[in-house]
Amino acid sequence: MKFIIQRDRLIQSVNEVMKAVTSRTTIPILTGIKLTADSEGLTLTGSDSDISIQSFIPVEEDEHEIVEVKESGAIVLNARFFGEIIKKLPMETVEIEVHNNFQTTIRSGKAEFNLNGLDAEEYPHLPLIEEENIIKIPADLLKSLIRQTVFAVSTSETRPILTGVKLEVQNEELTCIATDSHRLAMRKAPIESKLTDPTSVVIPGKSLNELSKILDDNNEIIEMVITENQVLFKAKNLLFFSRLLEGNYPDTSRLIPSESKTDVIVHAKEFLKAIDRASLLAREGRNNVVKLSTLPGGVIEVSSNTPEIGKVVEEVQAELIEGDELKISFSAKFVMDALKALEGTDIKINFTGAMRPFVIRSIHDDTMLQLILPVRTY
Amino acid sequence: MKFIIQRDRLIQSVNEVMKAVTSRTTIPILTGIKLTADSEGLTLTGSDSDISIQSFIPVEEDEHEIVEVKESGAIVLNARFFGEIIKKLPMETVEIEVHNNFQTTIRSGKAEFNLNGLDAEEYPHLPLIEEENIIKIPADLLKSLIRQTVFAVSTSETRPILTGVKLEVQNEELTCIATDSHRLAMRKAPIESKLTDPTSVVIPGKSLNELSKILDDNNEIIEMVITENQVLFKAKNLLFFSRLLEGNYPDTSRLIPSESKTDVIVHAKEFLKAIDRASLLAREGRNNVVKLSTLPGGVIEVSSNTPEIGKVVEEVQAELIEGDELKISFSAKFVMDALKALEGTDIKINFTGAMRPFVIRSIHDDTMLQLILPVRTY
Repeated sequence: MKFIIQRDRLIQSVNEVMKAVTSRTTIPILTGIKLTADSEGLTLTGSDSDISIQSFIPVEEDEHEIVEVKESGAIVLNARFFGEIIKKLPMETVEIEVHNNFQTTIRSGKAEFNLNGLDAEEYPHLPLIEEENIIKIPADLLKSLIRQTVFAVSTSETRPILTGVKLEVQNEELTCIATDSHRLAMRKAPIESKLTDPTSVVIPGKSLNELSKILDDNNEIIEMVITENQVLFKAKNLLFFSRLLEGNYPDTSRLIPSESKTDVIVHAKEFLKAIDRASLLAREGRNNVVKLSTLPGGVIEVSSNTPEIGKVVEEVQAELIEGDELKISFSAKFVMDALKALEGTDIKINFTGAMRPFVIRSIHDDTMLQLILPVRTY
Repeated sequence: MKFIIQRDRLIQSVNEVMKAVTSRTTIPILTGIKLTADSEGLTLTGSDSDISIQSFIPVEEDEHEIVEVKESGAIVLNARFFGEIIKKLPMETVEIEVHNNFQTTIRSGKAEFNLNGLDAEEYPHLPLIEEENIIKIPADLLKSLIRQTVFAVSTSETRPILTGVKLEVQNEELTCIATDSHRLAMRKAPIESKLTDPTSVVIPGKSLNELSKILDDNNEIIEMVITENQVLFKAKNLLFFSRLLEGNYPDTSRLIPSESKTDVIVHAKEFLKAIDRASLLAREGRNNVVKLSTLPGGVIEVSSNTPEIGKVVEEVQAELIEGDELKISFSAKFVMDALKALEGTDIKINFTGAMRPFVIRSIHDDTMLQLILPVRTY
């Protein structure tokens, strides 16, 4: 194998596939990046066996030559060293050549590296995906869906299925749900789908976080291909594979209360900042729990008390308080996460008593819902 | 105690004195910041007993009122909580009031915090410094002197004296020296001094790093006051105390070779980048050691070889190579640190053989010198 390539494009592709490479793998060859050069261009592959990423650099783009392939072939190079080397090379182009015994020369200007490579034949094959079940979704919408739900997945492995986000497709609508059993985040969006039957998969939260980092924030259409145990996201010159989580995702529909005893409408940012301040003294000892009480005159009181440090109390003027008087305690972190995800200027909170989950929605957007379980303190 | 203060000025002063506060102290009151309000203004103090910092906020500045002191007094408040609270308060002014039992109310807009304070009488007194031995130096020059030497102090406590920078004043000249016994950094500068006898002190590297972070990069004159076991740096509204290191600093003058067998002049940045690249593969296993060989035609070869990973070789065109042929090995990190400190475009290196220390200087500036011991590999 021998090729000459624009260094900045190589760096970009290496950064993309690096997102799938971990040094904590037990399979030595997965600490490497596979490079495959042929007449079409250069393909880079990185994988940690849960996630696999393939980035393609075409020979030519917009009539500019990007790669000049002098000899086809493939090699696996240590991801960390290869990544650091190409970032620090002196010139704008790099020549990469594989010799006997997988010895690989990386040349740029007067700098010449010789890296010990590994046999590309030993690199695991990517899953073969039959492109039957395809959903199309713009990249920026997909990134929003991930951002607004993935934070609510469980970080504990006691119920592995909850470490993923459930994606459900039905009647050209995609619903994303994440819950760690103390809170739940849900977002719906219309999509273009060729699926005839309702389909649902659970994708590991970690995979979605990495996918979100790689995708650009534009409206390029991403194709999502679902199989029994893999999902593939296809963007231009990029393939992102993730395994699916196996098991039954709990039925969350019955968790969402249909009735409401106290309704509050409040300015989201002001409410968020008040909770943030109240939580400052609550982070230690009290597990970040703050209290909320409704007061006469449409006022919400947010407070916390940690005897060994001090206490804090703040009044926030609500736009509306309707229904029963309420005193409730909750995790400041969970409510702040939910408010950040909602993005709205004004939010509506529906409480059904101090011991029941409450629901936060944006008043202008009903495609999104955040549900939080209170903490017993009163 | 009761006062109302501009919040941004309070944040700035808290950030300054915070540099001296550590949570790892065994003296509980030192986890706090002392606030003292009187008719002159507000004084904040932080200390870890090695370093003490005092920041003063005057009642009025440029005819703008900054602090309105309604009642004099003093209190000690937990540095971390107090710092976080004032950063997140909603309004531009803060009211702070101390009640019985050191209970302190912090009020801004509708947010009200109550912090448990500590008795300011229990806070250690700052050292009393007799202002006899005063040196005057512009802040930006002092920061340069620190930056160009402090990186070479020892990080090991086996010889505590080497964890400090030696400052020597003689004939209106200040010399700063740091060495960890594998390398040495020296910088001289003319200063204004009232000292009649040659004076030298050793200031902990950590103190100088913190001082450097607080000082602005301008030519404000800093007064440095030396006593037997303390040094005080005085800037406008700021006092910075550090203890001195006790013990005899080694005589470093005899370390610096007076002769030279091989002289090299090379472009600093190009040389630095070549060493950086050569060190990429040398970080593991070989302790970051790279090799340098002089070649015919005024060429320097920089290389490293780590059999299990690979090897790298790069030629750098020198502007001049004079004297004996040379092969030498050294720590890439030490040479890179030295080159970064020198700041020059062209540097001169004087070698006295593969086993002897070599000296790097900027060709345009002889106030600075970097000495490095080679590593035995040839």
